[in-house]
Amino acid sequence: MKTIKEYSQIVNNAIAALEYEATPSLYDPVRYTMEGEGKRLRPVLTLAVADALQADVEKALRPALGVELYHNFTLLHDDIMDNSPTRRGRQAVWKKWSPAQAILSGDAMFSVAMDCIIRSCYPDVQRLAMIECFNTTALAVDRGQQFDMDFERRSDVTLEEYIDMISLKTGALLAGACCIGAVCGNASEETRKAFNDFGISLGIAFQIQDDILDVYGDEASLGKPIGGDILNDKHTWLHICAVERAGADMESIYAGNLAGAEKIDAVRAVYDRLSLREEGEREVERYLQLAVEAVEKAGLPAEACRFFVDFAHSLIGRKK
Amino acid sequence: MKTIKEYSQIVNNAIAALEYEATPSLYDPVRYTMEGEGKRLRPVLTLAVADALQADVEKALRPALGVELYHNFTLLHDDIMDNSPTRRGRQAVWKKWSPAQAILSGDAMFSVAMDCIIRSCYPDVQRLAMIECFNTTALAVDRGQQFDMDFERRSDVTLEEYIDMISLKTGALLAGACCIGAVCGNASEETRKAFNDFGISLGIAFQIQDDILDVYGDEASLGKPIGGDILNDKHTWLHICAVERAGADMESIYAGNLAGAEKIDAVRAVYDRLSLREEGEREVERYLQLAVEAVEKAGLPAEACRFFVDFAHSLIGRKK
Repeated sequence: MKTIKEYSQIVNNAIAALEYEATPSLYDPVRYTMEGEGKRLRPVLTLAVADALQADVEKALRPALGVELYHNFTLLHDDIMDNSPTRRGRQAVWKKWSPAQAILSGDAMFSVAMDCIIRSCYPDVQRLAMIECFNTTALAVDRGQQFDMDFERRSDVTLEEYIDMISLKTGALLAGACCIGAVCGNASEETRKAFNDFGISLGIAFQIQDDILDVYGDEASLGKPIGGDILNDKHTWLHICAVERAGADMESIYAGNLAGAEKIDAVRAVYDRLSLREEGEREVERYLQLAVEAVEKAGLPAEACRFFVDFAHSLIGRKK
Repeated sequence: MKTIKEYSQIVNNAIAALEYEATPSLYDPVRYTMEGEGKRLRPVLTLAVADALQADVEKALRPALGVELYHNFTLLHDDIMDNSPTRRGRQAVWKKWSPAQAILSGDAMFSVAMDCIIRSCYPDVQRLAMIECFNTTALAVDRGQQFDMDFERRSDVTLEEYIDMISLKTGALLAGACCIGAVCGNASEETRKAFNDFGISLGIAFQIQDDILDVYGDEASLGKPIGGDILNDKHTWLHICAVERAGADMESIYAGNLAGAEKIDAVRAVYDRLSLREEGEREVERYLQLAVEAVEKAGLPAEACRFFVDFAHSLIGRKK
């Protein structure tokens, strides 16, 4: 096994070498989206799973690129839907070009991602399994995004519904990235299931952690202002718990029409009183543990198993 | 062989029976889009090609549905990009729901279309060939839409570029619909190429005919007001020819800032003076002839060959 950083470097090199069809107006936004040097966590998972199963990492690179292209496609379209003007400190595609261009380049990006899977160097049966996994993952992520959008118009979202939503919106793609790697390595049904469960639990842990960081994190390391979710009235793990347990307090805050730091402080005071930060962190820990237990069932050599346990911990910023 | 109407009925029955995943907010716009009883020309082509090659029509139905779902997906996203509030006399999805909903339901629709191909009942090698054809077609259509959008910002579009654009935007999907049917029928490379050429030429003929009808057609049978392309300064076959050959006249019309019927009459007068209607109709005829010649190379029985010749003529409203 290599380190996360090494896999990530392999992915970044391949992205830098990606060639697109000669239609610059269509593909410039795709190239721009892929440029920002991200952590490439999803394709790293694909490569690492393939590697853990003794498959050729070089050969798994093309499907891994498909996974990363797909992930960035979702960001591109999500930014239009959410009306978010920036992404990773740069203008979102729809803002830099136009919403129409972002829709079209996104559509093309999805097919370019699919093309990476289709044209990977595996026997038919494996390529079909990957294509199926890829497309099913896309449908799951679409449902997750739909739930998220539906939640915006509701005030009675339950914790269960929320976990469902993030397991689709965040978990499904981590699971899909693993499953595609598992197909590269000709994994048994059992191993595929183990990796799928790993991805789902990890996605849930990651998203709850993200919700906590948005309120209690450090602006410098987060790269964005604290409290954005509170100001945008986002349904997060913290928010849903607070509404369930201290609905009257939350309502009176909203009735007060507070803004900015005042609103953040008022909502955080409710969270603090309910000790939601600590409870949330225990939930993160619990899902992290579920992820670890899942991957332990994949039947991997000790070194490979350790990689995924470390990956899980590092993903949610915990030292092991 | 059956009649166009019979194939179309088979498709419409299957569409009525389509079941979507249980996420109504995501799939209601998809169902709405598929509801309007269209002519289903593209899936009819898929079924007819499969039938002409002695393949099972029932079995070809699922890929044919994928083709129709894909076609309707392009309309859904195009309406957002083009800011078109209506489609077939009903509200466009982005207008009835929202642009965000239209983007997301469109994304899901693409994957549902792909799913129809993936889950069709063919051996792996055929399913892979169909998936590849489907995805390559989608990329070609995206490029066509891109060219169309790029043309809006240019005044020097050449006829050659225009033919290129419509061969991608309209021709590629007719060709793709045929090719998927050809794969259902295990066609030789030669037969696939014949059907591909048939689809491309037919698409070009259809689009030029459409451009002519928008100016010289009959409002009642067209179902929309005459002259829309002129009022929207659209680059059409007629418009590009007029700018190439009577640029000064066209410029003086634009400089005059005419509107409504006055603008339509002024532009049509230029077209008339250049006899563009007649020339355009000869071009339609020429591409129609190319389509016929292509399909004659597919090595079909006489009855099957006649079907596609008749299909081509009826598509552009010519009696054979």
